[in-house]
Amino acid sequence: MSSAASQTPRDEIIEGLNAILGEGRVRVDEDSLQTFGRDWTKAWQPAPLAIALPKSVDEVQAVVKLANQLNFAIVPSGGRTGLSGGAVAANGEVVVAFDLMNQIRDFDPIDRTAVCGAGVITEQLQHFAEEQGLFYPVDFASAGSSQIGGNIATNAGGIKVLRWGMTRDWVAGLTVVTGSGEVLELNRGLLKNNAGYDLRQLFIGAEGTLGLIVEATMQFTRPPKDLTALVLGVENFDGIMNLFNRFQSQMDLTAFEFFSEKALQKVVAHSGLPRPFEEPCPYYALLEFERLNDEVEAQAMTLFEDCVEEGWVLDGVMSHSLEQLKNLWRLREDISETISQWTPYKNDISTVISKVPGFLSDVESLVNASYPDFEIIWFGHIGDGNLHLNILKPDSLDKETFFAQCGEVSKGVFDIVQRYGGSVSAEHGVGLLKKDYLGYSRSAQEVALMKQVKQVFDPNGVMNPGKIFD
Amino acid sequence: MSSAASQTPRDEIIEGLNAILGEGRVRVDEDSLQTFGRDWTKAWQPAPLAIALPKSVDEVQAVVKLANQLNFAIVPSGGRTGLSGGAVAANGEVVVAFDLMNQIRDFDPIDRTAVCGAGVITEQLQHFAEEQGLFYPVDFASAGSSQIGGNIATNAGGIKVLRWGMTRDWVAGLTVVTGSGEVLELNRGLLKNNAGYDLRQLFIGAEGTLGLIVEATMQFTRPPKDLTALVLGVENFDGIMNLFNRFQSQMDLTAFEFFSEKALQKVVAHSGLPRPFEEPCPYYALLEFERLNDEVEAQAMTLFEDCVEEGWVLDGVMSHSLEQLKNLWRLREDISETISQWTPYKNDISTVISKVPGFLSDVESLVNASYPDFEIIWFGHIGDGNLHLNILKPDSLDKETFFAQCGEVSKGVFDIVQRYGGSVSAEHGVGLLKKDYLGYSRSAQEVALMKQVKQVFDPNGVMNPGKIFD
Repeated sequence: MSSAASQTPRDEIIEGLNAILGEGRVRVDEDSLQTFGRDWTKAWQPAPLAIALPKSVDEVQAVVKLANQLNFAIVPSGGRTGLSGGAVAANGEVVVAFDLMNQIRDFDPIDRTAVCGAGVITEQLQHFAEEQGLFYPVDFASAGSSQIGGNIATNAGGIKVLRWGMTRDWVAGLTVVTGSGEVLELNRGLLKNNAGYDLRQLFIGAEGTLGLIVEATMQFTRPPKDLTALVLGVENFDGIMNLFNRFQSQMDLTAFEFFSEKALQKVVAHSGLPRPFEEPCPYYALLEFERLNDEVEAQAMTLFEDCVEEGWVLDGVMSHSLEQLKNLWRLREDISETISQWTPYKNDISTVISKVPGFLSDVESLVNASYPDFEIIWFGHIGDGNLHLNILKPDSLDKETFFAQCGEVSKGVFDIVQRYGGSVSAEHGVGLLKKDYLGYSRSAQEVALMKQVKQVFDPNGVMNPGKIFD
Repeated sequence: MSSAASQTPRDEIIEGLNAILGEGRVRVDEDSLQTFGRDWTKAWQPAPLAIALPKSVDEVQAVVKLANQLNFAIVPSGGRTGLSGGAVAANGEVVVAFDLMNQIRDFDPIDRTAVCGAGVITEQLQHFAEEQGLFYPVDFASAGSSQIGGNIATNAGGIKVLRWGMTRDWVAGLTVVTGSGEVLELNRGLLKNNAGYDLRQLFIGAEGTLGLIVEATMQFTRPPKDLTALVLGVENFDGIMNLFNRFQSQMDLTAFEFFSEKALQKVVAHSGLPRPFEEPCPYYALLEFERLNDEVEAQAMTLFEDCVEEGWVLDGVMSHSLEQLKNLWRLREDISETISQWTPYKNDISTVISKVPGFLSDVESLVNASYPDFEIIWFGHIGDGNLHLNILKPDSLDKETFFAQCGEVSKGVFDIVQRYGGSVSAEHGVGLLKKDYLGYSRSAQEVALMKQVKQVFDPNGVMNPGKIFD
């Protein structure tokens, strides 16, 4: 299929969907098309043909078979919290939304797993685990609306990757419907299974371009004990890295985040939260660990004092209650929402941790030199080399001009990413937003092989066409 | 290519290899052919055409291009410790051995990574990590001779998977030469990289059927603190599971292994090691944890006492020195070597942990009923659902009859594996030994898709043909 738009008359497609799902679960009203036709990126105008709301694996399979038969494109839709346009339907596609496949079943306390429909919301899974005395560790700002299927399709990361990894690490089994309409049950919850290629891994992070994730066996772990946060003020970025290295070598950290004074100022002004301490510092590090016992706390204090003596840390504060922990985290977690009023141009880039200081400094020099009027808000996950570069729109520029100028900067940023062997999309995925830049992170051979792999699973190109690559 | 045997005259191939590697690194003497032509399985007669010993990625690439040009098959060879015949060359293939690509370079203390040639020996990497004050956690009996490239190609597991996962979890980057001779640098050491399909995952565990692993960026972690083992005697298998559940819910275990009294008897007789305690018990569990502080030890003691009170545990012992730790581990780790004198028929099967008791009991009933004269030695990794079923050859049977009879039992065992949704190869891979049984763990559609994926990376079928599937 050369184009995402179907040649089959619209009515025939809707009739086919109605026959599978019943009219109540095939939506064509304008409101639904607008809502289900996009994610948190607002750059594209939604224009889906219809919204399909299946309730079972069989129904999903029937829809995919119909797509192959009638030659229409499918866009999978989870919680629509994506930031790269992976779930945007702007070309007459049928959106398959998993909102009704939101059951959690077959919990096993020994295996510590449960089977989730693709539409289970991240927070729902977190609460479910909690009710069983367990823990689902993948967490990020959109956990209240993102869905497990979408998390898996984008291999969602977040704020605790340093300790608990990405979504990939918690998928013990995966039921998918391939682009050609075959149902595969991949790995079936096994912890050890070296019987042939691990196709499950291919579907994780494929952004729905190979098939639809319909169910997943998710792994839980024991809950962390008495999580404790330290927020430390630091003079310069080298100090952050020294800090990271010192703590990481001595303690088991659950998070190591950073943000700039500018980010803090905006969050404090917006939220009314107190500053962590009086003295303003250019950068802040947020460390978190499990206070397993008094020894661990004492060790953290000793390390903190060492870092002060070394001159790396100017001031610091440690949480001593759950409320303090939450408030310290809000200083970091509220940044994204706070700066949304400035229509930020977001970048989600990574390199290996050791190269972060040079990388950050090169990017900052570039942006400062090219556009001295742009305000830059840095934050991110030092513990895994993932930086979020946010460029705020000056009031003097209209949105279109601003984004066009940022697009120019992006090429320079991605040149630096390429020079540092980094990623143009650390955790947000490629979708529509980054596909023109994929070549900065992946070789031409790799991209060619990816397209051939897609051909294997989705020979007629019905699955999320135009995402990741054309 | 329909057959593994080349149509090109032997001399032309050797001439081509000599031109790339020089005569010293192309071996055709009988001794080399026998040594490099097989792994620890001894069921196949080695018959390679030649042994190639490249020293660089470029040389490997040139050999693969030559294979495509002259139409010969390549068998990758690491430490040749495989147990499924994945590295067997019995059909005139060229063995590419990585023994000379055994350098470790570019260690970074912040990233905690190093780049390894495929021929780096597991133990060499473990020692290297130790010298840096770090830890490479994947460990198993053949660590002294297995190579990193082979470990990755088979996604090696071992005795610490419960805590540290499989080899897959420690590969931050992978340089491969595909079957068509392209060099891919996959993931380049990044911790977070959602820019397109993670092709690295496909090569891990593909047993060299997609291409050759030439270099890998391996991840290290902090060393465990004061590892401590408990060996507990248990009345029956349900007791083992209760024990596992109780400890697992309260402590961070680094291992949970089990073995039977029969296994213990043989190890004690063979090694002269003392029994863990006087009273013989039907089964034994070996638990390991980090004694981070006195509290942790006290907790382990309390749990042990609880389990005695519950009637699950008959007796037990805890290590209080590194020597005691090592001796307790030897009771479990020496089993494989000890029973090798009985020419055991080995099975490496898994299911989800919760189903292990029923699974084990069904397999035991089957084997006991079919062949009451066969002695069965069970051991394995309860913490990840992986059981090693070893059937010992009675003196009365010759090897051929015994293996033929075991082959019959195998079908019954794999029927049970299938019924329990398990794996016919938990950690040893498929190779030649299990390929006829792949269908018990993977659907026909999955196998068909795997073959198409192979076609993408190895269009001329030069890479380890006949392994995993035909």
